[in-house]
Formats: sequence, C-alpha cells, structure tokens
Amino acid sequence: MSVFTTVTAAQLDAWLSNYSVGTLVRLEGIPAGIENTNYFVTTTQGRYVLTLFEKLKLHELPFYLNLMAHLSSHGIPSPRPIANRDNELLGELNGKPAALVTFLAGKDLADPQPDHCVQVGATLANMHLAGTSYPLRMDNPRGPKWWKAVMPEIVPFLAPEEAALLREEVRFQSLYRFSDLPRGAIHADLFRDNVLFDRRRITGVIDFYFACTDALLFDVAITINDWCMKNDGRLDPVRAAALLEAYRAIRPFTAIERGAWPVMLRAAALRFWVSRLYDFYLPRPGELTHAKDPGHFRRILMQHIANEYDLPQLAL
Amino acid sequence: MSVFTTVTAAQLDAWLSNYSVGTLVRLEGIPAGIENTNYFVTTTQGRYVLTLFEKLKLHELPFYLNLMAHLSSHGIPSPRPIANRDNELLGELNGKPAALVTFLAGKDLADPQPDHCVQVGATLANMHLAGTSYPLRMDNPRGPKWWKAVMPEIVPFLAPEEAALLREEVRFQSLYRFSDLPRGAIHADLFRDNVLFDRRRITGVIDFYFACTDALLFDVAITINDWCMKNDGRLDPVRAAALLEAYRAIRPFTAIERGAWPVMLRAAALRFWVSRLYDFYLPRPGELTHAKDPGHFRRILMQHIANEYDLPQLAL
Repeated sequence: MSVFTTVTAAQLDAWLSNYSVGTLVRLEGIPAGIENTNYFVTTTQGRYVLTLFEKLKLHELPFYLNLMAHLSSHGIPSPRPIANRDNELLGELNGKPAALVTFLAGKDLADPQPDHCVQVGATLANMHLAGTSYPLRMDNPRGPKWWKAVMPEIVPFLAPEEAALLREEVRFQSLYRFSDLPRGAIHADLFRDNVLFDRRRITGVIDFYFACTDALLFDVAITINDWCMKNDGRLDPVRAAALLEAYRAIRPFTAIERGAWPVMLRAAALRFWVSRLYDFYLPRPGELTHAKDPGHFRRILMQHIANEYDLPQLAL
Repeated sequence: MSVFTTVTAAQLDAWLSNYSVGTLVRLEGIPAGIENTNYFVTTTQGRYVLTLFEKLKLHELPFYLNLMAHLSSHGIPSPRPIANRDNELLGELNGKPAALVTFLAGKDLADPQPDHCVQVGATLANMHLAGTSYPLRMDNPRGPKWWKAVMPEIVPFLAPEEAALLREEVRFQSLYRFSDLPRGAIHADLFRDNVLFDRRRITGVIDFYFACTDALLFDVAITINDWCMKNDGRLDPVRAAALLEAYRAIRPFTAIERGAWPVMLRAAALRFWVSRLYDFYLPRPGELTHAKDPGHFRRILMQHIANEYDLPQLAL
C-alpha cells in the first residue's frame, strides 16, 4: 500500500484554507506509487492530486515542482502545481513536504500502436524544447556515476555470465563521453504508465520525480526502450520509426546524436537493468513487493548489443 | 464584427511552431469582444484562444498576462497564457502583439441565482487573496482621476438634471480617500458575461483586460452591482447577502471596508455610468454598435443614493 502518511479530511480541509482551490469535497488514497503518499482530492473548484514526499530530498523538490509548472506553462500536459497563499508550490502537511497538483484525466496504455508512438515522440520533443528555457539544473542521480558506484554491491548476487555482462557494459559505456550532445531537462522515466491518453490524444505526462538535467537523447532512448519494445527484447521498427520521426519533425537530431544513438540505447537499458537489480537484491524495507523483473532490461541490453547494425536509425 | 486583424491557418500554423502545443487543427474567429481580435484555436494538443491586441498599450500587456498566469497557478480558473519557445507569454503575429491562452469551457449566465452568487463571491475572494502575492502594479485607468478628466467632455451632451447628478456624484466621491482599504490586483469587470459556469461550478473567469491595482472592495462593489441587481436598479438582498457572505468566509472584511461600503457601491456605479456615457456620446470610429445603455448605471447610482440606509451590509 502506498499511503505511508495518513491525512484526514479535517486535516486536509484546514490545510486547503491556505490555498485558493475551494473547500474539500472528497479525499481518496491512491494505491499506486512506491516513493510518495498520494491522494485524489476533489474540491468545490476541481480535482487535484495531493503528494506527500516520503523519501525525496527536500532540496530536490523545487527542481521537480518548478519543472512541472514550467512545462505546463508551455502547454505540455504535465500536472500543474498549485501555489498556496504564500505563493509557494511546496507546503508541509503532517510533518511531510507536500504539494497539490492538478489532476489529469486519461488512461495509460498497455499496448501502444504506432499512432500513439507518434504522439509520444511529438510530446517528448515539445517537452525538450520547452525545457531549454528552464533555469534550474539537477545532475542525473541514476547516471554513469551511480551505476559504477552500485555495481560492486550488485555483482555478488549475480551468476558469472550476468556479472560479466554488467561489468563489460559499464566499461563499454565509460569509453564514451557525450559532452557535445544537446542537454536539458529530461523526464528520464517516460514509460507507458506515465503517459495518459484520452482516445488518441495525450492528456497527461506524469511522475516527474526522476527528472533531471541530462542528454536529451538519453530521454529518447529510455522512451523508445519502453514504447517500441517487442516481447523478445528487440525494438519494433515500425513503432520506433513513428516515434523518432514525430520527434525529429519538432526537434531535429544533430549529427553527434546520430552517432551516439546505438550507445545511448544501451545506456538507457543499462540504467534500468541496474536499478531493477538493485531494488531486487538490495530492497529497502517494505519495498520487496514492488521489485520489477531485472531480466527484462538485461534482455533488451543483450538484444541491442547483438543487433548493433540493425537498430532503428536517427534521421537528421 | 470583432476580427480586426485576419489570421490565416497557414500564418497561425507557422506561428505555432514557436510553441509546444502541437499543430493547428481548426481556427475560428470569435465575434464577441470590442477591444481585441480573438480566435478559437484547436491544435492536436488542445483548445486555446488566440488574442491579437488591437488597442491596449504594449507596456500594459505584461500586467494582464502575468496576472492570469499568477492566478491560474493558484488554482483560480482564469485563462492560462502559454509561453512560447523563448519563454515569453507575449508574442507578435501579423504586426500585432499576440497571446495564446487556454480555452475554458462553460457558459455565462443571464439570470444568476443565489447559489451562483455564492460561487462568485468565493471565487472573487480567492482571486483577491491569490492576488496579494502578485508583484506587478498598475493604477486603475478608470478610477477617480479618469472620471474627473472626462466629465467636462461628457457634460455638454447631458440633460441638466443628469449633468447635475454627475457633477454632484464626482464631487461626493472626491470627498473620500480610501487609502486604508486593503488593495491589490482586482479584475474590475467581473460582470455576468465574464464568468463561465458548468452547472453550478465556475469553470472560467475571463477578460482580464480591465484588471489593475485598486481597493479590493471596489471589485466587490462592481461585482455586486451586476450579479445582484434587480431590474429596478435596486440590489436583491438575498443574492447580495449570498455573495457577500461567501466572500467574507474566505476574506473577512475590515472595519474600514464596512464603513466605506455604501460609498464604494456608488463609486462602482459611477465608474460604469461614466464609461458608458463616454462610449455613447464620444464613440471611437467603428464602436457605435457596441455602446451600452448608460441609463442602466445612472438608475443604479440613483437607487444607491436613495436607499443609503437600506443597502446590504458587510458583516465583519
């Protein structure tokens, strides 16, 4: 269950008196999510999501909240944090940092089609362009430094050939330094469960709590590795072409990005393989039930390596 | 007709490439409005209103656009200006300053009931509280200085008793200086046609192009003079009490506001009587068809004067 901190209607009603969103009508815990406590909040004015931050560091929260506000002000369908009467996006409720953001209608898709990938590619490119004017910066906490740092903790749990693959891939990635790639604010977790659709239209891009400043192409690779993946760990060329072409039409790729693409697809697979291995073998208390299969991203990584000369290309 | 500057689909589509709102699906001129050119714009991402500013001064536009953005970030259902790729709310299209704001669903009401007045009072109070943290300032261009300045131009057109009433009211108002009233950003034109409802819920507060910095109570008086008015120019005590109580529950009135209230109701009537007289007798070219009956606000003013001891009271 994902309501770590209980909020009563009376507590919330009092808290909302410091906001301009009307009075509380309904409060309902949200079971999904493993990092924060989330509630659906209905007021006389509208629907919102209340988040109490359980684990994220206080100094990181302004990056996420202001990024959502920034993207939303550019027309990106991200949740919009609501400012309180002190003009702050971040408040405190029951001893936890807390934020109220707009509720976004729509459903996530289990089985995306090429048309959906077109929407995702276009929205991702728009997010990246809108993000170029975002002034805050935050290093990627799940980048090369991180996977190098946690590898020694993970390796003892792995079979020899898995350990060898992990060591080799970390070494391979360390040979590349993509300092010339276009960088900016990235979502860094734009999986299918973080995009809401109403019919064919994207109505929501949610869960910005892995967002950071990194290579835009890394975000494209993370997105492709989920949205365009077949069951065998290989990319579906039709969906991949649809997503990449829609992205490129809004933000054309650079020549350096084209060259970096195969390596970046592997980096994006490695990042989630490592974090899933870590959550699987070194779970924090109470998190066991949420651990996802690390093998999924190991298979993707292996396919990317095996199909090096057959990956979807980036058109310039 | 209110499309003073024509925008073609091709022109708009090119202009939108500097925004993150998708591509143009539909463009439709809006006949209402006498100050600006307005279009409904549908893109692959959503619905918007495009406004080309025909008469407002360029240096005033940031006050309006940032106020809408500020109120919207506080949860007030005002249009939300969309920033372009240069992170600017104000662009330029066909030689005119231009802005894209979110479309708000809902219908305005011709015949508001007490329940609607409750919503309007609460929303107005929330707007005022959210506005206290708005950093920009703009003097009211339709305040005492203005009505004193234009009176000599209007008087020659008036019948003697009308001219005497106008002179006397301007003199009466000049006896009062409400420097101790709570001040802040006010809408200053919250008439029935500027509030959109979906059933009982307010879904939109629109047309911020008279907004300014002034006494909050002046805004309450302007609003009451429209929402709670009977056909005979007297206030409906039931609707007035509903609106004022809903407002007070969110922002309690001060003792000074209570004392100023009857004078403020007259000031709010005078302001619109004068502007309607001005538009009626001294229309700018092409505006004749839009002139509204000045007599409406003369009757309201006369009733406020006649019923001095029988006006709705402000509870503290």
